[in-house]
Amino acid sequence: MPAAPSAPGAARPRSWWGWGHTDAHPSDAECAALGALLPGTLARPLPIPRVADLPIARPGATPPPALAHLVTADPGARAAHAMGKAYRDVVRALRGRPGRIPDLVARPTDDRQVADLLDWAGEHGVAVIPFGGGSSVVGGVEYRGDAHRAVLSLDLTAMDRVLEIDTLGRSARIQAGALGPVLEGQLRPHGLTLRHFPQSFEFSTLGGWLATRAGGHYATGHTRIDDFVQSLRVVTPAGVSTSWRLPASGAGPSPDRLFLGSEGTLGVITEAWMRVQERPRFKASTSVAFGEFQRALEAVRTIAQSDLAPANCRLLDPGEALLSGASHDGSTVLVLGFESATGPVDDRLASALELARAHGGRGETPTAGGDAPADTAVSAWRSAFLRMPYLRDGLARMGAVVETFETAATWDRLPALIDAVRTEVGATALKATGHPATVNCRLTHVYPDGAAPYFTVAVAGRPGDEVRVWDDVKAAAVDVLHRHRATVTHHHAVGRDHRPGYDRQRPEPFALALRAAKDALDPHRILNPGVLLD
Amino acid sequence: MPAAPSAPGAARPRSWWGWGHTDAHPSDAECAALGALLPGTLARPLPIPRVADLPIARPGATPPPALAHLVTADPGARAAHAMGKAYRDVVRALRGRPGRIPDLVARPTDDRQVADLLDWAGEHGVAVIPFGGGSSVVGGVEYRGDAHRAVLSLDLTAMDRVLEIDTLGRSARIQAGALGPVLEGQLRPHGLTLRHFPQSFEFSTLGGWLATRAGGHYATGHTRIDDFVQSLRVVTPAGVSTSWRLPASGAGPSPDRLFLGSEGTLGVITEAWMRVQERPRFKASTSVAFGEFQRALEAVRTIAQSDLAPANCRLLDPGEALLSGASHDGSTVLVLGFESATGPVDDRLASALELARAHGGRGETPTAGGDAPADTAVSAWRSAFLRMPYLRDGLARMGAVVETFETAATWDRLPALIDAVRTEVGATALKATGHPATVNCRLTHVYPDGAAPYFTVAVAGRPGDEVRVWDDVKAAAVDVLHRHRATVTHHHAVGRDHRPGYDRQRPEPFALALRAAKDALDPHRILNPGVLLD
Repeated sequence: MPAAPSAPGAARPRSWWGWGHTDAHPSDAECAALGALLPGTLARPLPIPRVADLPIARPGATPPPALAHLVTADPGARAAHAMGKAYRDVVRALRGRPGRIPDLVARPTDDRQVADLLDWAGEHGVAVIPFGGGSSVVGGVEYRGDAHRAVLSLDLTAMDRVLEIDTLGRSARIQAGALGPVLEGQLRPHGLTLRHFPQSFEFSTLGGWLATRAGGHYATGHTRIDDFVQSLRVVTPAGVSTSWRLPASGAGPSPDRLFLGSEGTLGVITEAWMRVQERPRFKASTSVAFGEFQRALEAVRTIAQSDLAPANCRLLDPGEALLSGASHDGSTVLVLGFESATGPVDDRLASALELARAHGGRGETPTAGGDAPADTAVSAWRSAFLRMPYLRDGLARMGAVVETFETAATWDRLPALIDAVRTEVGATALKATGHPATVNCRLTHVYPDGAAPYFTVAVAGRPGDEVRVWDDVKAAAVDVLHRHRATVTHHHAVGRDHRPGYDRQRPEPFALALRAAKDALDPHRILNPGVLLD
Repeated sequence: MPAAPSAPGAARPRSWWGWGHTDAHPSDAECAALGALLPGTLARPLPIPRVADLPIARPGATPPPALAHLVTADPGARAAHAMGKAYRDVVRALRGRPGRIPDLVARPTDDRQVADLLDWAGEHGVAVIPFGGGSSVVGGVEYRGDAHRAVLSLDLTAMDRVLEIDTLGRSARIQAGALGPVLEGQLRPHGLTLRHFPQSFEFSTLGGWLATRAGGHYATGHTRIDDFVQSLRVVTPAGVSTSWRLPASGAGPSPDRLFLGSEGTLGVITEAWMRVQERPRFKASTSVAFGEFQRALEAVRTIAQSDLAPANCRLLDPGEALLSGASHDGSTVLVLGFESATGPVDDRLASALELARAHGGRGETPTAGGDAPADTAVSAWRSAFLRMPYLRDGLARMGAVVETFETAATWDRLPALIDAVRTEVGATALKATGHPATVNCRLTHVYPDGAAPYFTVAVAGRPGDEVRVWDDVKAAAVDVLHRHRATVTHHHAVGRDHRPGYDRQRPEPFALALRAAKDALDPHRILNPGVLLD
């Protein structure tokens, strides 16, 4: 698993404008060294932006005395809640043109306070942006427009406790504002884990995962947060929704599935009973090199269609493998891992390796045991994975355009889709910047019926115009995805940035139903306006 | 798997009033023999009801000429579409007091016709009851009330084709009106199977499974139909909803999950891309006897929380084991089975057996191979399983009250829940009839966080008053479930019969959202009125 630090992340200072912890940011010299890899970038890094330089206005609304202690208008807090952590957010901060800074930031500590804040906001035309870890890369936590008198960022991170544990049924009642390490730290003493490790693990919350239908780190089986939900508690302007704790139910459409993926537009998820697991004791992993990407795709499909259920089954194309240090000879690399709390997994790894070899894979010797050092390609890839967003920001400071996007499609569409993304996105980036672009691809999640490709684009920018360049590149990407009937997002969510693709993809009768549900639950239309719906 | 007849069921005559094929109904003599097992039942079976005796009125509406060829007012067709196949439906037919007979039965052959029928019905205030195999046991396919000018039963079984198969991605585009054997018969030549085998398999359709979130036969893992859905096509009065074929997507709340479980109230599901599978080649099964039900529960929980993923893991309490012939010594019996298309499953069976023995189970020698004769308890249980609904109807003819209901709850609640159902439902049945009742329990589906108990109640009735007796018994059951926070239904759906429990269980904000979605998609409120919502 990529990210399970032993200490909660709260103690280290978080960056208001860039990814993660400030002490992990690349230095100016490191930024320059990164920039040197992309000819055409700036000679020296853009300066780190300062809150003092931001256009922070007087709040457009004042909370009533009873709620005042929950709310701050502190500029640092407001700046840190102005945007998510997409490349376009980072660049806007670097260029001194951030999104609209919220007027106020509230940190409620219980459901009653959340409800009171919603009531006040509804009465006074104040937009409410639910905010977890703030790691959105799709414009999910910023306000755009001017239809509201003021904007309140509703920060849930003060609600971060594991309130109850049912060890018999392996479930835990967890508050939505718990960041990944914070909730895992409370489960660990019980030998349990939620086993949900998105790349943003350290900087995102349970509530954010639920509201955006986050994808975990694992490649197959139950990895999306949806499948771990036993019940949800959601504070809506129309009342509190609490579903029953049930292992399964066939009573009508699932209430929870309406709120999962609602991205803060229907209500504020404040807690959930989640299915947790015993910590895995048996692990084995290896990597397999392939000469041809296409044959590697076939190997992965065969493994995904077996019942071997690898925990990790990431396919890195040659560029991605090179970038992460998993291979230096132009190979496609498959990173394979198995985990179990029940029994040894070496047989399953051996069977998967056999399937990979039957499709031309050259496998390394498997590495067993949770604490044993993983094989070289596997470790290289893991470190690079966690470091990637920091490097992106370092390159952003060099004026480069570096961002990722992800999708999912059925196996029959994948080869042409991946080719088209490489070609068309590369061509758009070249046209927009005059520089050749790198477009790498990995598969992050695999299913019997398809897979989720994840693309990384890197190109020297057009200084001062990086946002427009990226928006052009992303528009080209969304267009390719649409033509190939690949989803606009596999696990990054819709937010505001994916609206053009989402609106075309969503069946119109479902849009009618969703709008009607929104009107019923949020009659004053204060909740995360512009996300999912107008 | 319990039910995969080689020939489609259509050739054999279906009963209009009782379960399944008429040629499989118990004879009068067999009914009498069954009745003799329950002292207090009638001396001779009630006569088989005749369509000619039904109060069939003139249709209250006439379809326009363009649709006339799709619609019939034939008394036999109308009688066969008047009700589902719950005990209370069978008894109402036997007692000559059926539910409201629909005015018309339509059999569209494509989406356009479905849309045209909905348009006509909307304009003329005609209620539309979507109808698949008609096997509802919760009043899901009958009309109650008088707010509509006429009632149209919309029979989808003329739309029963597998339209497309994607062998690479193991998916199939299937029309919603295909009965289980009809769709399996079209998949088999491709070596594929949907592997969804509810007890009603022969007499229910894909569309019915989707609309009611049917549970399959398998005990763990993906068994509910929801998880096999790649995309849905739904004809609503407000337009056709077609979701994209995707292995996964994080783009907003899942459109499909709103229609799954909507029970014909939001639209008519006309086709779906379904995830299909290779047919399993490796099988192994066995049974394990336990002296104590409570210890067996613990064994089952341990197996459910392992990653062994048994295909079958049914726990039969002593009464259930006796009834099905799986045991005659008062033991609790666990039926265990494993299946795979990838490799041998004997190790997994052995591991599960070991876990069962650690909790006091006495295991028989495992039986391997798909075609090898299964062990005695397993085969006995399988035959009894498929025969059960026929025997229920035989007993109904003897004036007995015999019906099942199912639920699901977390492990911590299960022992007290099962005890309370046995005690309170038994007491209510005794009070209502003056006869001692049998209340048996089996677990049909097991999850890491809980399980689905399935109860069978049998008691000599109060002649002529069977429906009221059953309604009293069921009300007591729903009350116990509610007090124990066990769902009103695990896989039988809500229909009209489960409304009292469902309305109390459903979170009120979700009810608001669902009502709003209903108003948006079905503005004339013609679709399955009274189901899920008023």
